[in-house]
Amino acid sequence: MDIATPAGLLIGFVLLIISVIMGGGVSGIAAFINIPSMMIVIGGTICATLVRYPLQRVTGVISLIMKTIFVKLSSPQVEMQNLIEYAKIARREGLLALENKIVDIKDTFLSKSIQLLVDGTDSDGLRSILEKEIENVRGRHSIGKGVLESMGTVAPAFGMMGTLIGLVLMLRELDDPSKIGVGMATALITTFYGVLLANLIFLPMSGKLDVRSKEETLLKELILEGVVSIQSGDNPSIVEEKLKGFLSPSQRKVKSIENLKETIRATK
Amino acid sequence: MDIATPAGLLIGFVLLIISVIMGGGVSGIAAFINIPSMMIVIGGTICATLVRYPLQRVTGVISLIMKTIFVKLSSPQVEMQNLIEYAKIARREGLLALENKIVDIKDTFLSKSIQLLVDGTDSDGLRSILEKEIENVRGRHSIGKGVLESMGTVAPAFGMMGTLIGLVLMLRELDDPSKIGVGMATALITTFYGVLLANLIFLPMSGKLDVRSKEETLLKELILEGVVSIQSGDNPSIVEEKLKGFLSPSQRKVKSIENLKETIRATK
Amino acid sequence: MDIATPAGLLIGFVLLIISVIMGGGVSGIAAFINIPSMMIVIGGTICATLVRYPLQRVTGVISLIMKTIFVKLSSPQVEMQNLIEYAKIARREGLLALENKIVDIKDTFLSKSIQLLVDGTDSDGLRSILEKEIENVRGRHSIGKGVLESMGTVAPAFGMMGTLIGLVLMLRELDDPSKIGVGMATALITTFYGVLLANLIFLPMSGKLDVRSKEETLLKELILEGVVSIQSGDNPSIVEEKLKGFLSPSQRKVKSIENLKETIRATK
Amino acid sequence: MDIATPAGLLIGFVLLIISVIMGGGVSGIAAFINIPSMMIVIGGTICATLVRYPLQRVTGVISLIMKTIFVKLSSPQVEMQNLIEYAKIARREGLLALENKIVDIKDTFLSKSIQLLVDGTDSDGLRSILEKEIENVRGRHSIGKGVLESMGTVAPAFGMMGTLIGLVLMLRELDDPSKIGVGMATALITTFYGVLLANLIFLPMSGKLDVRSKEETLLKELILEGVVSIQSGDNPSIVEEKLKGFLSPSQRKVKSIENLKETIRATK
Amino acid sequence: MDIATPAGLLIGFVLLIISVIMGGGVSGIAAFINIPSMMIVIGGTICATLVRYPLQRVTGVISLIMKTIFVKLSSPQVEMQNLIEYAKIARREGLLALENKIVDIKDTFLSKSIQLLVDGTDSDGLRSILEKEIENVRGRHSIGKGVLESMGTVAPAFGMMGTLIGLVLMLRELDDPSKIGVGMATALITTFYGVLLANLIFLPMSGKLDVRSKEETLLKELILEGVVSIQSGDNPSIVEEKLKGFLSPSQRKVKSIENLKETIRATK
Repeated sequence: MDIATPAGLLIGFVLLIISVIMGGGVSGIAAFINIPSMMIVIGGTICATLVRYPLQRVTGVISLIMKTIFVKLSSPQVEMQNLIEYAKIARREGLLALENKIVDIKDTFLSKSIQLLVDGTDSDGLRSILEKEIENVRGRHSIGKGVLESMGTVAPAFGMMGTLIGLVLMLRELDDPSKIGVGMATALITTFYGVLLANLIFLPMSGKLDVRSKEETLLKELILEGVVSIQSGDNPSIVEEKLKGFLSPSQRKVKSIENLKETIRATK
Repeated sequence: MDIATPAGLLIGFVLLIISVIMGGGVSGIAAFINIPSMMIVIGGTICATLVRYPLQRVTGVISLIMKTIFVKLSSPQVEMQNLIEYAKIARREGLLALENKIVDIKDTFLSKSIQLLVDGTDSDGLRSILEKEIENVRGRHSIGKGVLESMGTVAPAFGMMGTLIGLVLMLRELDDPSKIGVGMATALITTFYGVLLANLIFLPMSGKLDVRSKEETLLKELILEGVVSIQSGDNPSIVEEKLKGFLSPSQRKVKSIENLKETIRATK
Repeated sequence: MDIATPAGLLIGFVLLIISVIMGGGVSGIAAFINIPSMMIVIGGTICATLVRYPLQRVTGVISLIMKTIFVKLSSPQVEMQNLIEYAKIARREGLLALENKIVDIKDTFLSKSIQLLVDGTDSDGLRSILEKEIENVRGRHSIGKGVLESMGTVAPAFGMMGTLIGLVLMLRELDDPSKIGVGMATALITTFYGVLLANLIFLPMSGKLDVRSKEETLLKELILEGVVSIQSGDNPSIVEEKLKGFLSPSQRKVKSIENLKETIRATK
Repeated sequence: MDIATPAGLLIGFVLLIISVIMGGGVSGIAAFINIPSMMIVIGGTICATLVRYPLQRVTGVISLIMKTIFVKLSSPQVEMQNLIEYAKIARREGLLALENKIVDIKDTFLSKSIQLLVDGTDSDGLRSILEKEIENVRGRHSIGKGVLESMGTVAPAFGMMGTLIGLVLMLRELDDPSKIGVGMATALITTFYGVLLANLIFLPMSGKLDVRSKEETLLKELILEGVVSIQSGDNPSIVEEKLKGFLSPSQRKVKSIENLKETIRATK
Repeated sequence: MDIATPAGLLIGFVLLIISVIMGGGVSGIAAFINIPSMMIVIGGTICATLVRYPLQRVTGVISLIMKTIFVKLSSPQVEMQNLIEYAKIARREGLLALENKIVDIKDTFLSKSIQLLVDGTDSDGLRSILEKEIENVRGRHSIGKGVLESMGTVAPAFGMMGTLIGLVLMLRELDDPSKIGVGMATALITTFYGVLLANLIFLPMSGKLDVRSKEETLLKELILEGVVSIQSGDNPSIVEEKLKGFLSPSQRKVKSIENLKETIRATK
């Protein structure tokens, strides 16, 4: 699912370039590269965002985007299987036996959870520490979402400002008709930049952070629930039942009605 | 009611084609077919949606739309009659007698419900399994609604981008006046595509999914309530009273006040 | 108050026609009658609405509008006076004596309420039957409001599409300058239609249904409360006190403070 | 504070007139007076409002605006001082002694409150009568706000319609180039009217009614609280403490920490 | 973080000036300075704001902006350290020993809090006084936010009005083609002003006030909690634990899991 975001961005830009070439030849592309226009739209959008948000929030958005695109989330099924396995070990050999597993865990949230378990933290402690961590993830994504949304609103406005600047400058030299076309073309590019940035990057990325935030916190909540269940000494099948509620229907794929009823019986 | 959606789409397009022919002759239609414009609007909209949503959600929307248009929902009255009949059978011959009916049931939700009934699942089990199923339907429709809504917002923006590309390319060759008209016409087509897709397809289909979602979950809730009522051994007339609350007023068509008061008495 | 809606529509159209005549003479009106433009805006709006809503909801809107404009609502004061009179009769001669009154009642909701009273329905039955009826009215108005609102959003978009079609066709024949003006004029008419329909008809009518829905349900709630009060054997002055709360301040026109205090005492 | 509204309106119009004169001389002003344009924007806006709202609500808005601009609200401090004084009189000479004060009171809400007090209405009666009165004020303002907001949305749309009418009529006579400029100028004036009315009058006045509604109901709630406090026999300093909570921080201007702590002690 | 706001404003304007120079030379800047345009946009925006808000609210916004930009907030960590230190002194030498510290405290909210502590105000008194103070700050920021938001909505509308005025005046003198360009350029500048003011100043500053309001009230709530904790005689490490909840995750930077668990134990 992480491939969709960079692929969408890449294909979107390629489509635009191809359609420019189809309309105006390869030389047409040059018409769409304009330094002052970029300066106004990108620079202006960043400036308006700086006026609004503290510096570190704006810079934090970039790393957040990178992470959203390049770091692949583990799937809930995999984490559920891991937790069931840990539950089996804990049942057979005690919680302390999980200590050897920690080095193999890549997910820092899961490894921290298991560490807390091994250290004998009680269930209230576990919950309060891990819930605070989940709150952090949610908070960071929500700030990033706000910043990108505000950039998506401001970018077309700066695009329009750039076009107005271009038009005003062009209109002052109407006596040279040969310059009118190029002047207007240059002016319009800024609006194009603003609309493009807002609709292909800022607003969809803002929506993406929202989708991602829900997936990531769901995954962490699954781990939290699993770890608390292991600590309370639940047997592995109970752990599985508790975690299944976190899977989306398509991930669960209940094959038969028998299977379903078994679930019901087990949770009683 | 399912006919309205494809009919609306078809008539909408026919009306537009007729008005083009009335304005510019049959040859005028050619002026509205432009491959780069389609590429920008359709391609760009899909790309922006991919940036925002995971791949399987975007592809899932197509099958959801197909199902909404082509699969006809059973009516609440029919399902109510079926359930009353099952209630009669269950009263006369016991729940197990319903097993023979299952093969004749086309609706998978109803057949699953009756299967659970026959298998002796208790009422809490029935409720929890079927409610989860209903939740799935609602969830799938709500995701589809979100995707279509976001496509409806983005399509006009890509239409505008295409028009800006066309204008910029045209303005660079203002010295050849004969090309201006065709250039501008081509540029404007992209905006036309964007507005058309958003207002005849994406946004109305998004609204349609909402309407459909409510109908479908209402139907399933009626079945759930009926099955639970049958299981608890209610007599058929009580089952009918309980299910009548799910019918909309026009479906119920209470003919006389006597009838109404009878209802009241029966539900006490 | 029902006169305002048709009067507003009529005067609005007359004002527009006068201003066209003032600007372009009587012959100017011909410039604003364009069949393809109407086809696109009205037809397109209806089609998009059909894609979104089931057929019977769309057709139901027309009868709902007619009813809102032409059927005059009874006033709360009149209904209150009627109910007080019925309370007096019920006190003097018993509930059954109300039966003779039913034939004279024009309002179907009131006549059904009195019929239920005469038939000896208990207060829970009365409430549940009449509240369901009120819910229906509210539901029907709310669906109508949604359909009109969505038409008001879509109409300007189809207006813009029609203008784009007109511009594209016109721009292909720029070599004949004499046709440019008429072509553009025709193109712009479609946008005019869309904005006009949305802002003089669809959106205000949608708001009107909202206002009307509140008035009508308030009136029916007043009747419900009055009938329940009569059934419980309240004396007429208590019925009056209970119903006064449904009147808006200007309808109540409390003349003196003494009068007010009396009200307070009576309701204790 | 009441001066700001008429001053803002006046200065706004003067600024626009000056800037017209600076751009086009005194004769330029004539270009902005156009009867058909005014007819479309003002008339159309009123008509659309009549379609939406009952007649008496639309006419009620005008008197509401007049009252908001010209009737000066008493300040909370003054009312608090009055109530403290009445509390002193009531303590020394009994509630009946307040009767002589009523004739001097200009505020009808305060005089009615004191009258109720003198008449011996109990505290529940006082509360219920005065709260109903406050609800009325809030209701009237909220209706006015809705009407003005809807006028502010509709006015620019009718401005656009007027411009489209002007353009269509002008484009039919493109062969006379000398008329083009004047035709377009006249067409654009209607849009100017619509934007002006919406942004200098309708929308700000709608916001003003909201601000005023909050001030007026706060003042009335202060009086209500004070009267109830007097009736319950509170001593004047307690009345003062209770009412201070209604003052905004800048009105209260707590000078020293000592003062604050005294307040705290007193309210215990 | 306070540097971002003035820096964003400054760089934003510099970028726009540079891009004007790149497009039209240094002389191009003159084309963007137009007194009547400024009068319409700035004057009109202020007038519409005066119609809507009482005078003192509008003037209060300026001082609020100045304070937001130039007054640097203390950091939560620093305040936490201060409060821990006071807790130590209070434990060792009693609450009265804090009196000597008050003169050194710059933050007026903190010094008032400590003064109240020294004066022996009980915990309910402390809470009610300080919470009222916090409510004031929040209220002032929220009014400022509303005023700036409404200015940001109105500014582009007045920009458009100015452009319409310019166009109308220009179109009356179409016979002198040499003036068309300059006329249109001047007209467009007003729209440029409106969009610029709204998107670089009003709307981002409105968002800034929101961000700042949250930071400032959080800081004050931390102080409140700390002072109440000191008063109740908590030992310094408990005070620290209680205040840590107010730090954002990045400010807290929990280094090790051990540290975390200690926190949990301490708060029990």
